[in-house]
Amino acid sequence: MTTRQRGAGTNQEGVRRHNLGTLLRHVHRTGEISRAELTSLMGLNRSTIAGLVGELAELGLTEHADPATGSAGAGRRTAGRPSAGVRVVDAGPYVVAVDLGVDRAVVARVGLGGRIAERAEAAINEDTEAWQVGAAVAALVRHVVSWAPEHAPLLGIGISVPGLVRRTDGLVRQAPNLGWRDVSFGSIVLAALDLDVPVRLGNDADLGALAEHHRGAGVGIDDLIYISGNVGVGAGVITGGVRLQGAGGYAGEVGHMNFDPRGPLCHCGSRGCWETAVGAHAIAAAVKSPADQVVRLGEVLDEITAPPRELRPIAASIGRGLADVVNSYNPSLVILGGYFQPLFRLMRSEVTAGLAERTMAPALESVRLAVPGLGADSVLLGAAEIALEPVFADPVASLATAITDARSRLAG
Amino acid sequence: MTTRQRGAGTNQEGVRRHNLGTLLRHVHRTGEISRAELTSLMGLNRSTIAGLVGELAELGLTEHADPATGSAGAGRRTAGRPSAGVRVVDAGPYVVAVDLGVDRAVVARVGLGGRIAERAEAAINEDTEAWQVGAAVAALVRHVVSWAPEHAPLLGIGISVPGLVRRTDGLVRQAPNLGWRDVSFGSIVLAALDLDVPVRLGNDADLGALAEHHRGAGVGIDDLIYISGNVGVGAGVITGGVRLQGAGGYAGEVGHMNFDPRGPLCHCGSRGCWETAVGAHAIAAAVKSPADQVVRLGEVLDEITAPPRELRPIAASIGRGLADVVNSYNPSLVILGGYFQPLFRLMRSEVTAGLAERTMAPALESVRLAVPGLGADSVLLGAAEIALEPVFADPVASLATAITDARSRLAG
Ligand SMILES: [Zn+2]
Ligand SMILES: [Zn+2]
Repeated sequence: MTTRQRGAGTNQEGVRRHNLGTLLRHVHRTGEISRAELTSLMGLNRSTIAGLVGELAELGLTEHADPATGSAGAGRRTAGRPSAGVRVVDAGPYVVAVDLGVDRAVVARVGLGGRIAERAEAAINEDTEAWQVGAAVAALVRHVVSWAPEHAPLLGIGISVPGLVRRTDGLVRQAPNLGWRDVSFGSIVLAALDLDVPVRLGNDADLGALAEHHRGAGVGIDDLIYISGNVGVGAGVITGGVRLQGAGGYAGEVGHMNFDPRGPLCHCGSRGCWETAVGAHAIAAAVKSPADQVVRLGEVLDEITAPPRELRPIAASIGRGLADVVNSYNPSLVILGGYFQPLFRLMRSEVTAGLAERTMAPALESVRLAVPGLGADSVLLGAAEIALEPVFADPVASLATAITDARSRLAG
Repeated sequence: MTTRQRGAGTNQEGVRRHNLGTLLRHVHRTGEISRAELTSLMGLNRSTIAGLVGELAELGLTEHADPATGSAGAGRRTAGRPSAGVRVVDAGPYVVAVDLGVDRAVVARVGLGGRIAERAEAAINEDTEAWQVGAAVAALVRHVVSWAPEHAPLLGIGISVPGLVRRTDGLVRQAPNLGWRDVSFGSIVLAALDLDVPVRLGNDADLGALAEHHRGAGVGIDDLIYISGNVGVGAGVITGGVRLQGAGGYAGEVGHMNFDPRGPLCHCGSRGCWETAVGAHAIAAAVKSPADQVVRLGEVLDEITAPPRELRPIAASIGRGLADVVNSYNPSLVILGGYFQPLFRLMRSEVTAGLAERTMAPALESVRLAVPGLGADSVLLGAAEIALEPVFADPVASLATAITDARSRLAG
C-alpha cells in the first residue's frame, strides 16, 4: 500500500508539472493570455489555474498582466469583468537559436513568446572545417548572450543545420552542401563555449515547418509543408498536427527526388535530382548572378523587378517537383521558404501551372501555396522552438539544468 | 453542482467504454490473452479488468479461455499459477471486408481476431459501371454472410478501393484504373444490399499498410511503407505508429511521381509517372504475358522460375523509385505488396541496387525491404480493420448499430 501511495504521489507531481508546462506553452504561443482563456483551454477550474500561474510567476517564467494594458488581452477581452492576464517575462529565461546556412550563421537570443531579443551573424567560408564553424558560432553566441539581463537563465541552445540530423542525439549524419558526415556539431559548439547546457539540433526545413506551424503562415493548419531553399532544397512536413520525422529523423529529403534521369550530377552523388533543376546554382545562372553571389541568392532575387525569361523553365520545374511533394504528403498548405520566397513572388503563375500539371486533382483542389509568415526568420525561430521544448515538458526540471550565470561565464 | 456531477458521470461512462474498447483491441490483436497480461498492458487493477472482461462476455464479444488449452495463452504462460485467459468468440460479431481490384473483387467475412471465416470472389470486366460493380460486390457479400451463424451481429463493412478516397466520408474521388470520379461506392453497395450498416472505405495501399502494421511483417515497427502493386502503384504510410493520411486522405500517391519527363503518358494524364515504368502493363510486356493476363500478373510472375532479362531494367526502376519513397518518408521497413511481391523474389538484387543508387546514406542504412507477412490478404484484412475500428472506440455503441438478422435479411 505504501508503494502504491508513493506511486500516486509521484504521478500527481508529474501531472502538476505537465500542467505547468502546458500553461506556459499557451502563454508562449500567445505572448499574453487571460486566466479565463486558460481555464477554458485547459479544462481546469479557476483556482487550479491560479495556483499554476502563481507557481510559474515564482519560477520567474511569467508575470501578471493587467487586463487593460496588455494588447493581446485587450483585443480578446469579452463582455463583463475583464480577466487578469498572464504574460511572458521579457527579462526572463531565454534560449539561443542558431540558423546555420552554407554561407553564414545567424544566431539570436530568443525569449519565451518567441521574441528575438538580439541577433548577430557572420559569414562562413566555403572550405571552413566543422570546428571552425563551431568557433564562429560560439563567438556569435557569446555576443548575443552578452546582451542578456544579468542572472536571466539560459535554458538551452537550438541549432538548425542544412542536412540530415539524427533524431535520437542530434548527430549531423550528412550535410552535402557543407561537406559534413557524422559531425557532432552540438558538442563542438558547447566545447567552444566551454559550457554544458541542453543543446538540440534539427534539419532546417523541419524547423521552418515547426515555426510556421506555431506562429507563422501555418497556424491552425495540421497538414503543411515548408520547402527550404537554402543552396540545397528540402521539405519539412507537419502531418496531422505533428512533425513527420521518419525512423531516423531524415524524412523530407525531397531535394534529391529523381527529377530527370538525364539531368546533371548532384553533389549527393545521384543524377538529375530536383535540386539540380531548381537549386541555387541553377537559379543564379538564370539570373546571370556571379557564382560568389549564389549564397545570397534571396537578396539578389529580391532586387529583381522584371524577371528574365530564363527563370520560366525553372519556375515550371519548381511547380512540377512540388506536384510530387503534394502527391506524396497531401498537405493543405505549402510554404515556400528561403530563395523560393522571392522567386514565387516573381513567377507565381509559372510555379502554379507546373504544380497543376502533375498533381492528382483531389490533392490539387485542397492545396494552397504561400510565402512564410515569419519572413526570413522561420528556420531561426524553429531552432528556438526545439530549444524551448524541454521547458514545456517540465518547467521545473528545465530550470534546474539552466545556466543562470551564462552572461558572466561567457564573457570570461 | 447537479450539472457538474452529471458531467462527471458521463465522463466515467466514456472512460469505461474506452477501456472496454481498448481491452477488446488487445484481445483482437492477440486472438487470446491472459488477464495478467491485460492488467499489465492496461495499467488497471485485476478487479477492474475482471469487470471489463465480464462485460465484454455479456456483450457476446469475448469468452473465457482456459489457460491450459489456448495456444497463445499456453505459449505465453510464465512461471507460477497460469492466469485465466480471454479470447474472441468464433461465432460472434463480424465484419465484411471488400478488396476491390481492377479486375476482380474479393469479399470476406472476418471475425474479431482477424480470422477470415469465409471468402468469395468474382471477376470484374473492364468497362463495368460503378453500380454494376456494386451489384457484383453485393452478391458476394450475400454469399459470405449466408455462412454466418444465425443472429451473429454484422458490425459493418470495410471496402478497399484502388484510388483516392476522401477521409471525411469515404467518397471515391478518383480511381484512374477503374475510370471513376466522385463515386459514392459505399452507398452503392448498401443500396444494392438494401441494408443500413456502418460502411468505411480506404485506399488499398493505406489498408495494406494498416494490416501489415497490426498483424503482418510490420508488427512493432512504427515507420513503414506498404507499396501496392495492383495494376496501379501506390504507397500506404505508417509514421510514428499512425497512418499518414494528409489533409484529404490522399497522401501516398507515389505511383504518379515524376520518373522520366520523356517517358510514356500515364492514364492519370501526366507524362512519365513511376507507374508507367513499373506498373502492371510494363511488367506484363517484359514477361511477354498477353494483355488479358495483366490483371493476373501476380500469378503469372509466381510461375516464373528463370526471369527474362527484360525484367532487369524494370526491377532497377522499382528500386530507383523506392529511393524517392525512402528519401521522402524515411521508413525502417518497405513492404512490397501485390505483384511486387513475386517480382521482388525474382529480382531482389536488382531492386536493392536501384534503391541504393539514389537513397541518401543515413536513410538507406536503416531501411529494409520485405514481402508482406499476410501474403495476398494484407489489403483485405486492412479493410476488415477499418470496419472494426468503431467497435474498439466504443463496443456498446457499435453493437447498437450492428445488424443481428443480417443473414436472414440478406437471404430474402
Ligand atoms: Zn541529389
Ligand atoms: Zn500518372
